[in-house]
Amino acid sequence: MQSSQPKTALVRVQDLTPEKADQLIWLRARIHTSRAKGKQCFLVLRQQQFNVQALVAVGDCASKQMVKFAANITKESIVDVEALVRKVEQKIESCSQQDVELHIERIFVISQAEPRLPLQLDDAVRPDGEGEEEGRATVNQDTKLDNRVIDLRTTTSQAIFRLQSGVCQLFRDTLTKKGFVEIQTPKIISAASEGGANVFTVSYFKTSAYLAQSPQLYKQMCICADFDKVFCVGPVFRAEDSNTHRHLTEFVGLDIELAFNYHYHEVIDSITDTMVQIFKGLRDNFQTEIQTVNKQFPSEPFKFLEPTLRLEYTEAVAMLREAGVEMGDEDDLSTPNEKLLGRLVKEKYDTDFYVLDKYPLAVRPFYTMPDPNNPKYSNSYDMFMRGEEILSGAQRIHNAQLLTERAIHHQIDLEKIKAYIDSFRYGAPPHGGGGIGLERVCMLYLGLHNVRQTSMFPRDPKRLTP
Amino acid sequence: MQSSQPKTALVRVQDLTPEKADQLIWLRARIHTSRAKGKQCFLVLRQQQFNVQALVAVGDCASKQMVKFAANITKESIVDVEALVRKVEQKIESCSQQDVELHIERIFVISQAEPRLPLQLDDAVRPDGEGEEEGRATVNQDTKLDNRVIDLRTTTSQAIFRLQSGVCQLFRDTLTKKGFVEIQTPKIISAASEGGANVFTVSYFKTSAYLAQSPQLYKQMCICADFDKVFCVGPVFRAEDSNTHRHLTEFVGLDIELAFNYHYHEVIDSITDTMVQIFKGLRDNFQTEIQTVNKQFPSEPFKFLEPTLRLEYTEAVAMLREAGVEMGDEDDLSTPNEKLLGRLVKEKYDTDFYVLDKYPLAVRPFYTMPDPNNPKYSNSYDMFMRGEEILSGAQRIHNAQLLTERAIHHQIDLEKIKAYIDSFRYGAPPHGGGGIGLERVCMLYLGLHNVRQTSMFPRDPKRLTP
Repeated sequence: MQSSQPKTALVRVQDLTPEKADQLIWLRARIHTSRAKGKQCFLVLRQQQFNVQALVAVGDCASKQMVKFAANITKESIVDVEALVRKVEQKIESCSQQDVELHIERIFVISQAEPRLPLQLDDAVRPDGEGEEEGRATVNQDTKLDNRVIDLRTTTSQAIFRLQSGVCQLFRDTLTKKGFVEIQTPKIISAASEGGANVFTVSYFKTSAYLAQSPQLYKQMCICADFDKVFCVGPVFRAEDSNTHRHLTEFVGLDIELAFNYHYHEVIDSITDTMVQIFKGLRDNFQTEIQTVNKQFPSEPFKFLEPTLRLEYTEAVAMLREAGVEMGDEDDLSTPNEKLLGRLVKEKYDTDFYVLDKYPLAVRPFYTMPDPNNPKYSNSYDMFMRGEEILSGAQRIHNAQLLTERAIHHQIDLEKIKAYIDSFRYGAPPHGGGGIGLERVCMLYLGLHNVRQTSMFPRDPKRLTP
Repeated sequence: MQSSQPKTALVRVQDLTPEKADQLIWLRARIHTSRAKGKQCFLVLRQQQFNVQALVAVGDCASKQMVKFAANITKESIVDVEALVRKVEQKIESCSQQDVELHIERIFVISQAEPRLPLQLDDAVRPDGEGEEEGRATVNQDTKLDNRVIDLRTTTSQAIFRLQSGVCQLFRDTLTKKGFVEIQTPKIISAASEGGANVFTVSYFKTSAYLAQSPQLYKQMCICADFDKVFCVGPVFRAEDSNTHRHLTEFVGLDIELAFNYHYHEVIDSITDTMVQIFKGLRDNFQTEIQTVNKQFPSEPFKFLEPTLRLEYTEAVAMLREAGVEMGDEDDLSTPNEKLLGRLVKEKYDTDFYVLDKYPLAVRPFYTMPDPNNPKYSNSYDMFMRGEEILSGAQRIHNAQLLTERAIHHQIDLEKIKAYIDSFRYGAPPHGGGGIGLERVCMLYLGLHNVRQTSMFPRDPKRLTP
């Protein structure tokens, strides 16, 4: 059945309030649920996270045939309805629009859904364990991801990805206000800058190329090219065969690089302030989304300090040792120790976000600037949210000769990183930066436990679809 | 020589005005040029597009050795100077700061450039043909691109990429205000949706994958998942062996997709309004950048109409025929005919931007919605800037059955596009969209003639570096 073209504008479900009572309106929405009962058919009509009860009843406006027709429209179909808005006596607790219902006079199917849905939206948003006794189902993650086009319609998914869109916007707006320039860096590259491990290979006409693991070289080139402060948002590729809750083979990197004047802590301050602006923006403008996600996945509100807590690596090692961990001064943090440290920091400082500064030089990449005051350490840092790393960064060596020495020390083939080293031969300011994983930031901010929940179409070693 | 850490803040070159006269300031900048003359050394110090004259002269503040030291600092090195700001009697025409000069008292080298630069910045910004008689060089494009880290320092490059950053920001801000949600779509995909031509292959663990030629499928899935209006900004990959002024193998796509209510012209209007907001934003906020680029590459100001001119394909064919072109009703436009049409439209309507609507169905992809009133045509459109295509878009078929029929008609292997077709089986609203190439928009807005000028690190069949 084709829709006629009504002259009136379509009303949004969220605007259906008692002020619209007794008005005849047009609306386009999905059939969320449908229940026929004698001469009536109750529908719940949905638009994104908003829904309203609607009724087709045999009487002046509807024939028996029409009620039957309405009752047979499959769930998830899209319909246009002409309906009278009616105030209700008793709040409709199950709908977002609790004070009104619609009395449908005409109904047209715009797009018919197949009768068997691969998953039910109500099941997909049910908190783990809830309704188990009544035999109610939840939907496992692979089924959700396999049928993402339906799973993304749930209130939880809508909230997650609207919040994710907000993170990107807050990131860019904050940096733009600080005078950063957005750059676009190539994803197909001719050489793998850090030796070639964990890189995807691309067939490139008669030769081979690689997918960039990070925009770092290009960000640094832009700094050497006088852009002073740059950021970029784009895909980052990691050919790691890691099947964990927090690894993806393709994710969105939010990257920052800037020249500094006197001390690399200017870089840390710039990044932490950006993170704080993001946290504040989410807290102030995305409360509805946060609460929607919390309904299905309860978590504590995300806590942060101003200014951001900055600990030195040696302090962290001391805290861990006090908690019984045995580790050497220059050992890297294992994932369990990172998490434990996160709990210790939360207890002591009451923050879910902090910076760990001055990593041992030995555990960082060759381009990391050594600490001028102590050769065992380096001008490098990681940032953590709820005990998990979200950013790794450093002051970069901006002197070609020192960079060459450090590469030799790391036994890196100089020929392969020639272009990288040459970038610093024509005058390069002191600079540093870091990269944040968008999906991880969203996961940890919301207190979720799998990064696939915050990637619309996740890619991992076992998943390439949809 | 290491910089001491002055207590005072560093002044920006652009802030060096007569109000600062007789102040002692600290500044970090590059040596743009250097000319020793007896007991004096004249330097031009540069920060991005701003520069100022500076002087080291034997006297109270500088020894003969210091003048010699200053004169020996290589061009493009980065220095910190302590200097007295002095008003000048006669404007310094060759510098952006024309009313003051600096009398240097101390100078430290922060980063030394190698003495032989692969290209000279002054040569790289010289307009074609200028100074030819004096034997002055210009720099060819490959030399510029091979040494991009230096070439990006020129006033022209700085202006181009600041404007490009502005295009992205205007695009996103306009759409965010209209209620669009930003999405992130995967670049590694399991199947090439349009049959597999022109797609880069990636090794993916034990299998193969492809690089996405467009985010279209994912944008459409988001529409089917109730996001209603979405946009994305990200890399797009085309394995076409096209070596032209306007083709890249990797470029940045600015993509839009939206559900509409009654007519696909709602989609066209949404896109053209976004373009108009971009044009206005550039005109109003990037005049300095536009004029800087024009100095090297003169062009007419970009003209556009409000509302945007929309022509039907049949009208375009008529205009071309009137101009002597022989073509059938359902023939596609060749590139020369597109350009000719651009000139004809400019003459008749005085606009550099217009929409060509209702393309013949035969020349469009299988997922294009046929015109319900005339099966020879389709609900599809291209948009042009200065006679070159910047966007191709359409109302998409949102019905799985019709989509299947059209795919069969195009002899497409249904198995390969199964996931695409299945996306529309669970209720899909009428929708349409399109994708814009960022580099082309910047090139054509500025009246440039090669898309490599508006890609920081361009990729084409012959170029994978830097």
